[in-house]
Amino acid sequence: MGYPMAGHLARHFTTAVWNRTPEVAARHAAEHGTRQAASIPDAVGADIVFSCVPTSREVNLLVDAALPALRPGSLWVDCTSGDPTMARATATRLAERGVTYLDAPVSGGRPGAESGTLSVMVGGDAAALERARPAIEAFSSRIVHVGAVGAGHMVKSVNNALMAVNLWAASEGVLALERGGVDLGAAMEVINASSGRSFATESLLAAGLGPDELQPWFKLALLHKDTAIASDVARNAGQPAPFLSLIVDMLGAARAGLGGEPDYRAIPRALRAWQKGILGRS
Amino acid sequence: MGYPMAGHLARHFTTAVWNRTPEVAARHAAEHGTRQAASIPDAVGADIVFSCVPTSREVNLLVDAALPALRPGSLWVDCTSGDPTMARATATRLAERGVTYLDAPVSGGRPGAESGTLSVMVGGDAAALERARPAIEAFSSRIVHVGAVGAGHMVKSVNNALMAVNLWAASEGVLALERGGVDLGAAMEVINASSGRSFATESLLAAGLGPDELQPWFKLALLHKDTAIASDVARNAGQPAPFLSLIVDMLGAARAGLGGEPDYRAIPRALRAWQKGILGRS
Amino acid sequence: MGYPMAGHLARHFTTAVWNRTPEVAARHAAEHGTRQAASIPDAVGADIVFSCVPTSREVNLLVDAALPALRPGSLWVDCTSGDPTMARATATRLAERGVTYLDAPVSGGRPGAESGTLSVMVGGDAAALERARPAIEAFSSRIVHVGAVGAGHMVKSVNNALMAVNLWAASEGVLALERGGVDLGAAMEVINASSGRSFATESLLAAGLGPDELQPWFKLALLHKDTAIASDVARNAGQPAPFLSLIVDMLGAARAGLGGEPDYRAIPRALRAWQKGILGRS
Amino acid sequence: MGYPMAGHLARHFTTAVWNRTPEVAARHAAEHGTRQAASIPDAVGADIVFSCVPTSREVNLLVDAALPALRPGSLWVDCTSGDPTMARATATRLAERGVTYLDAPVSGGRPGAESGTLSVMVGGDAAALERARPAIEAFSSRIVHVGAVGAGHMVKSVNNALMAVNLWAASEGVLALERGGVDLGAAMEVINASSGRSFATESLLAAGLGPDELQPWFKLALLHKDTAIASDVARNAGQPAPFLSLIVDMLGAARAGLGGEPDYRAIPRALRAWQKGILGRS
Repeated sequence: MGYPMAGHLARHFTTAVWNRTPEVAARHAAEHGTRQAASIPDAVGADIVFSCVPTSREVNLLVDAALPALRPGSLWVDCTSGDPTMARATATRLAERGVTYLDAPVSGGRPGAESGTLSVMVGGDAAALERARPAIEAFSSRIVHVGAVGAGHMVKSVNNALMAVNLWAASEGVLALERGGVDLGAAMEVINASSGRSFATESLLAAGLGPDELQPWFKLALLHKDTAIASDVARNAGQPAPFLSLIVDMLGAARAGLGGEPDYRAIPRALRAWQKGILGRS
Repeated sequence: MGYPMAGHLARHFTTAVWNRTPEVAARHAAEHGTRQAASIPDAVGADIVFSCVPTSREVNLLVDAALPALRPGSLWVDCTSGDPTMARATATRLAERGVTYLDAPVSGGRPGAESGTLSVMVGGDAAALERARPAIEAFSSRIVHVGAVGAGHMVKSVNNALMAVNLWAASEGVLALERGGVDLGAAMEVINASSGRSFATESLLAAGLGPDELQPWFKLALLHKDTAIASDVARNAGQPAPFLSLIVDMLGAARAGLGGEPDYRAIPRALRAWQKGILGRS
Repeated sequence: MGYPMAGHLARHFTTAVWNRTPEVAARHAAEHGTRQAASIPDAVGADIVFSCVPTSREVNLLVDAALPALRPGSLWVDCTSGDPTMARATATRLAERGVTYLDAPVSGGRPGAESGTLSVMVGGDAAALERARPAIEAFSSRIVHVGAVGAGHMVKSVNNALMAVNLWAASEGVLALERGGVDLGAAMEVINASSGRSFATESLLAAGLGPDELQPWFKLALLHKDTAIASDVARNAGQPAPFLSLIVDMLGAARAGLGGEPDYRAIPRALRAWQKGILGRS
Repeated sequence: MGYPMAGHLARHFTTAVWNRTPEVAARHAAEHGTRQAASIPDAVGADIVFSCVPTSREVNLLVDAALPALRPGSLWVDCTSGDPTMARATATRLAERGVTYLDAPVSGGRPGAESGTLSVMVGGDAAALERARPAIEAFSSRIVHVGAVGAGHMVKSVNNALMAVNLWAASEGVLALERGGVDLGAAMEVINASSGRSFATESLLAAGLGPDELQPWFKLALLHKDTAIASDVARNAGQPAPFLSLIVDMLGAARAGLGGEPDYRAIPRALRAWQKGILGRS
């Protein structure tokens, strides 16, 4: 995700890029005219620092390495789908250095990243968001300020958990229908024209049910992590949330059943394997 | 639902109407030029008989009363959101009389019924559907043949169960976010622009969370019944379906908590009451 | 189960035995002095007929074959762990022949069957139970009349579902503790001395967690069936019962994951496989 | 709980008692010959300090107040049913002062506390446990060392979650049976003689189903907290644990439904209210 996002940034701003794999940053420099940073400290002396990594744990490692090199008065915009509790701790660490943290996870997937039309949900100080807005607009067509530090991560985790629930439940339903004699295509056509439809049924279910190998878009392991964050958001809120709880456990079971490092769209395949396992068919 | 559907039928076909409440049939006759049937037998001597009642139990009662008056060679098109097992038994009873049964539940709600643009999912004999198609087209813009008798009910029940799951899970999520400091409107805006969106988040959630009394669109009790049918579809298919199971129990708990005869869009209110009950706030 | 039960009967009553596998009945005759029936009709001309088969489906097949040979005024005592709805239909069929049906599932496992100390939960006419009591006492130390026809099956299914829930939840808990650094033996010792204990933790969990091959006591597939009956009992009662629902789906997933025809005590192994699958360890 | 435990301590050791409510400590002094401490610092200059409060949050407050007065080389034995993560942080704080922390939650309820026969599950350094053992034995008949700091809390939380699951599921089952026509007493008799039995069915269910006001033994709110800890233990272990998840949400719903500050044995009453709410009966 970060690769095309940084490409959009570079069209409007002087941009340095650091990546765990130096070859990636070198390629980015060649393609987008960015400067390849030699190290994390070399990358973070900017007015605005963007981070986009798998989890808040990696953000912490970045901050560890970056802290001495950060410029007081600068902004750190974290586009990771992260943990709100860890984000608050990160914000405190950065504030001691005079740096303002915004959590700004994105939605829209690779297509949105490439076209620069991501949705961004931002938690943190509103004035800091105004300073960061021109840069965020380089890759976003919708920026929504959703609350204090951590609120962006909270909203993102809930969004992803809803997608996971919607996809899981739809998989249960259409696989049951298929086994009951309903043509899968017809079942999906009806549901997508009716009140049971969702982004998951419209955009994810068919690929998940089909025979083709799934390109690695988004690791199921990361979606699993997001659902656990969403469930914690509910628990901390005193909100009984049985579906947000159950999806955590079911994604765990699906990961175990699928093996390897599956893409999240493989969820229907985990459920189909359960059906076939019970019925004793290959 | 049946009232506007019969109105559309009457624009193209000679139509007799029977309703449990004679005044309703009389009003329909006055508005749409239909003939008010004096009794069930008086209504069912047609080429095509349509039924649209709350559950398959009421269909059975209709068939009990209609059986002697049915014309061999006629069709019975059941637009009820019914039970596939009961539908198969009904089809057998009608076949002994020479009548062909189609289950043909509809989707699109009152607006779709009024504009004549319902989606219809049909189970039963394909040739019989072709004979019925011109009549069904009077109130439908999409007719999908989904399988043998009962398949229509199966697809409808799964569609409704997915809607219920999507609405329930979304309610959990946004209420948790609200309690966590996120503005409800912003949370819904982001989700509706992201991968967590669904018909439920786009068209049902805001009314359910709002303060206004909910017009009676569709009884939560009937949605509860639909989810139980969907869960049975999964069990009969040997498909582990924890979300289709759990929604049955949660709708039961919501009905108990809300009291009275709530509309299905009140689901978020049941969940909000749980949050407030735990936090001890009014 | 039926083998030792019929052995106890034979110590007090003239007993004919029919088994799907004639060699089994021949062995029983040699061991216990029973008469090997040549066919189902040859077996059922007794004052009291006992059946003990995997599910109510097999009971139906037995009744089909037995009906013409049954003696009016006789009793049919069904020790199968069956379905209450099917039992009521069976009772009606038998009553038309003048035969009184009692559902009388048993608890106590193979040890109880061998020692003749099974618990029996009986549904049906109280006077019929009194007539059957001396025979049932041949293999039972506790006979409880729990209600009308079907009530025995209802109680048995709920008992088994509770056992399954208790075993499943305990497996989750101790496997999580083990992974968290707690010695499994110590965890089980404490729980078995504390308020979390159950028959499942005391008598099933250790074997399920251990390395030894599990002797086939009771098929997980049959326990799965029992939990589905219990969940239906709750649904028919209007009782929200999320745990009785969820265990149905989870046993389905466990069957699929374990493969083959596992014993029910393998439940902890299914859960351990999930943990290892996530952690990527063999 | 702490009151009788301190009474047993005082029979073998010089004991000072501090309680949030000074009158309680004064009464204890009069009854058991303990010294009423004037303040937290006045209480904690002992070789072994025991704490027994509702949650780890209150432990933290005690440690805040006690820290300057603690004696290097002393032990802090925390009998609270607490949070393992917070316990590890507490242990670190105390270690900086030279004090060794053991988490030592107890099981056995008020009767076990009064008779001095509690079970104690201890996490922390084994040598420190040996030093503390003579004191713990004053109120315990079973001391099990279960692992490192936090392990005691982990085991306790899992034990309590299993009790809650067992009680909840049993309530679902027997209430469904009752509605299905089975006498509640007979259902419980059979289950308690069969494989579905548990501490919950033997010792908690009858009171919960009965009409009498429940004496405040253990707040449902605290059991709710314990289940959330157990669910976190499973998540941190990578163990899919749908039942440990679901019980958290269901206890939340039960608290909201019951209102006030219910005892945990009221769980069956929450479920009965759900059934009656659906059936529209008072």
